Amino acid sequence: MINVTVWNEYKHERESELVAKIYPDGIHMAIKKMLGRNEEFNIRTATLDMPEHGLTDDVLDTTDVLIWWGHMAHNQVSEEVAEKVKQHVLDGMGLIVLHSGHLSKPFVKLMGTCCRSKWRENDETERIWVVEPAHPIASGLPEYIEIPQEETYGERFEIPTPDELVFISWFSGGEVFRSGCCYKRGLGKIFYFRSGHEGYPIYWREDITKILENAVYWAKPSHGPKPSLGHYDAIENVKDKFAGMDESLRKHTYIKD
Amino acid sequence: MINVTVWNEYKHERESELVAKIYPDGIHMAIKKMLGRNEEFNIRTATLDMPEHGLTDDVLDTTDVLIWWGHMAHNQVSEEVAEKVKQHVLDGMGLIVLHSGHLSKPFVKLMGTCCRSKWRENDETERIWVVEPAHPIASGLPEYIEIPQEETYGERFEIPTPDELVFISWFSGGEVFRSGCCYKRGLGKIFYFRSGHEGYPIYWREDITKILENAVYWAKPSHGPKPSLGHYDAIENVKDKFAGMDESLRKHTYIKD
Amino acid sequence: MINVTVWNEYKHERESELVAKIYPDGIHMAIKKMLGRNEEFNIRTATLDMPEHGLTDDVLDTTDVLIWWGHMAHNQVSEEVAEKVKQHVLDGMGLIVLHSGHLSKPFVKLMGTCCRSKWRENDETERIWVVEPAHPIASGLPEYIEIPQEETYGERFEIPTPDELVFISWFSGGEVFRSGCCYKRGLGKIFYFRSGHEGYPIYWREDITKILENAVYWAKPSHGPKPSLGHYDAIENVKDKFAGMDESLRKHTYIKD
Amino acid sequence: MINVTVWNEYKHERESELVAKIYPDGIHMAIKKMLGRNEEFNIRTATLDMPEHGLTDDVLDTTDVLIWWGHMAHNQVSEEVAEKVKQHVLDGMGLIVLHSGHLSKPFVKLMGTCCRSKWRENDETERIWVVEPAHPIASGLPEYIEIPQEETYGERFEIPTPDELVFISWFSGGEVFRSGCCYKRGLGKIFYFRSGHEGYPIYWREDITKILENAVYWAKPSHGPKPSLGHYDAIENVKDKFAGMDESLRKHTYIKD
Repeated sequence: MINVTVWNEYKHERESELVAKIYPDGIHMAIKKMLGRNEEFNIRTATLDMPEHGLTDDVLDTTDVLIWWGHMAHNQVSEEVAEKVKQHVLDGMGLIVLHSGHLSKPFVKLMGTCCRSKWRENDETERIWVVEPAHPIASGLPEYIEIPQEETYGERFEIPTPDELVFISWFSGGEVFRSGCCYKRGLGKIFYFRSGHEGYPIYWREDITKILENAVYWAKPSHGPKPSLGHYDAIENVKDKFAGMDESLRKHTYIKD
Repeated sequence: MINVTVWNEYKHERESELVAKIYPDGIHMAIKKMLGRNEEFNIRTATLDMPEHGLTDDVLDTTDVLIWWGHMAHNQVSEEVAEKVKQHVLDGMGLIVLHSGHLSKPFVKLMGTCCRSKWRENDETERIWVVEPAHPIASGLPEYIEIPQEETYGERFEIPTPDELVFISWFSGGEVFRSGCCYKRGLGKIFYFRSGHEGYPIYWREDITKILENAVYWAKPSHGPKPSLGHYDAIENVKDKFAGMDESLRKHTYIKD
Repeated sequence: MINVTVWNEYKHERESELVAKIYPDGIHMAIKKMLGRNEEFNIRTATLDMPEHGLTDDVLDTTDVLIWWGHMAHNQVSEEVAEKVKQHVLDGMGLIVLHSGHLSKPFVKLMGTCCRSKWRENDETERIWVVEPAHPIASGLPEYIEIPQEETYGERFEIPTPDELVFISWFSGGEVFRSGCCYKRGLGKIFYFRSGHEGYPIYWREDITKILENAVYWAKPSHGPKPSLGHYDAIENVKDKFAGMDESLRKHTYIKD
Repeated sequence: MINVTVWNEYKHERESELVAKIYPDGIHMAIKKMLGRNEEFNIRTATLDMPEHGLTDDVLDTTDVLIWWGHMAHNQVSEEVAEKVKQHVLDGMGLIVLHSGHLSKPFVKLMGTCCRSKWRENDETERIWVVEPAHPIASGLPEYIEIPQEETYGERFEIPTPDELVFISWFSGGEVFRSGCCYKRGLGKIFYFRSGHEGYPIYWREDITKILENAVYWAKPSHGPKPSLGHYDAIENVKDKFAGMDESLRKHTYIKD
């Protein structure tokens, strides 16, 4: 069972009639509904207006993968919660950042760059090309996914070079965008996925859901070693360790039965 | 179920008394025995002396992950089989290359460089440090693994920069080595793991087995899209595609109730 | 002074009237003319029909950066010369591979993958976006370069993940392409640059020339250490080395007045 | 001429007799003296106690590469100056971070991770191995550099995976460390170099000076395109752009005689 928490700013859906028509219960509930068909996922949601934005210690401590959608209210996310999310990622929690979440506090803090890009709302077509088909996030996808109308983002996207670049988007207006970017930070894994403007029904699509599903599996904690940090004694005198051992034994120390 | 084929040159074990004592049935059988305790793995073995080195089309076609150990007889591997292994990796089969397999034909062909390194047989201690604890191959490991005696390898290791570097080895004689290297090539994934000199009982260790087990999960085919290549017509006139669509409909094409 | 050798297959220019009109003396002479205005470059040319394809030991030994254009006659390049070029790159020579040279023998050998892609001759527009503006190959360029008509290439481009990705191309027909790819292999540096179909006057452009000029500076040998390889004695007993040294001296061994 | 500013905390040298003996005028003046022999470098220094830590707008605006040494007083660097340094790096200024500067405010902000490591003061030997000899920072170096006594740092070093890893250090006490790490961030380049504990005369060494010299050349601004960000109109209707152009002309638009 993978514990997924879907965080949504949840403002556009309550302020715009168009958006409300697409996402009557909010983007988070759409993602929950679509992803929730996978019985290995235990999905909760959290939104900006909840106390501590719904991201209490208890919620974060029991989250394997946090999905983040935000846009118009990045500034309303408290420094404290943003720092806590960052720390949980460094401690191993997976983070999937969607669309305009590239300017959210947790993502910007974790990247160390300004993370801006070009953008334009122009009903252009996006074609998401798989450039790393061996990556597990590309599992089961076609060569490219076409989204008939989307907000356009364009390079230069001011991010650190992704550790792994899975998708590059093409836009009919003339731009390209690194739209599926993987990072490892501390013990945690981060996946940025570009698509998902609130004005289009992106998260109701099967192919987009498949990408998010793959990303959850990829980003979930893999429980690598938590390193000891700071002052650290030399472990032992490695050269002398086996000095007195009988030679015939030395080579076979670990043989079983 | 993941189909694993363990390929071994199987020469040292039959020519050296010492090695035979450690691996009486061959390195491949030790790996099979240790990994085989995982019930999700279906493990076969193949050796140099078998027809087509045991890597017939049928075997390769039904192998998810191929593990390769070779050393003194790299030249005896036929060009044809080496090319076939390479092609299967590019088509999605995982490949785990062990120790002196860095100079095997399939690995050298896939890397495009000469893949040599320094080496010395001197019973030195190796300490394998995890430098990328967020990587799934580091799952469940301690911060470092100490091998009391191993053959020493030293940088410069003439490989392409790994896509992901999971381990760096320290040797008591003064060398370092990039000892856990991940590559994606075509649709396939490759993991090079340094340890495993035939004169020490490395593959009987639980920690080394854990690394191999993690690597099998990481390297197994993820069934990404097989790209179409060569001449390719423009898919459609993307600009005109939605031109005639009613505006109110356009934004909601994909909405599911 | 940087010694540049421009290698060209030189077939299209002698077989097609259109190409001959654009490159009357061959693509190599156009590149030589444009790059040759830089007085730090000493430029020679070589073509397929010359003995040893113009790439004798003497020429390769005195080449800092080799530029390669080939397309219809990759198979006519001898194995021996291709291997020699590969070896020179591993020994430090820079290599700039242009356009359809992605399927040339030296590049494919160095990459270890098949290096194919989609393609289409359809007079589409290419827009080359700079995605890594901090890279020296992007020096002095605008945000993007537009080429009104070019052959279209499309992902999936079957290359190893570039060490550094400088450009991504957008094509008006719907494709994207990783069009400026940097690799380090052995002691050498390799830059693949996509543009330059023989049917368009790409290499007469100032902006394209600027890219090639930047690439020559980036790819030229930087004379790093040539590693010793193979059997290698332990250098010394590092632990004992300074054991007897007077403490007051030890900390100041290297002080210069 | 490359404008280099060497910033030093300059505390240890005034508080410890031992350190004062090694660096009587401060670490910054030693680096200035050694690097200053290169006539292409115009070197200034700045220290913590100066107004604005010596890093006024005027100084930063005219600095090509900033070298940073800090250790015991990271907290005394003002937020404002730290942010300004970060912004200048994103705008193209090179940054070379030395030794314990891995925990300095500008570096930590730019990395987005906590940047801690293991450490131990034990007079151990460090051997700095070149693992990427094709990188310009390895120019002119031997295969490895041995420092008889240094402070020990050990992995896990909590940094983002370096864009390029040039050096790996070996320590006689049993640790390894990624000790030469390159990053591109925004328009700027960052090089972290590990060695240089204040208690040893590291910066008086010729080989270490050569590394810093190489790093200055590598990190200096390369004047790539400053991207336009934010709202961005579609550039033009690319499909129609050449529609009316005479066919015979279209292919030859750029030909120069």
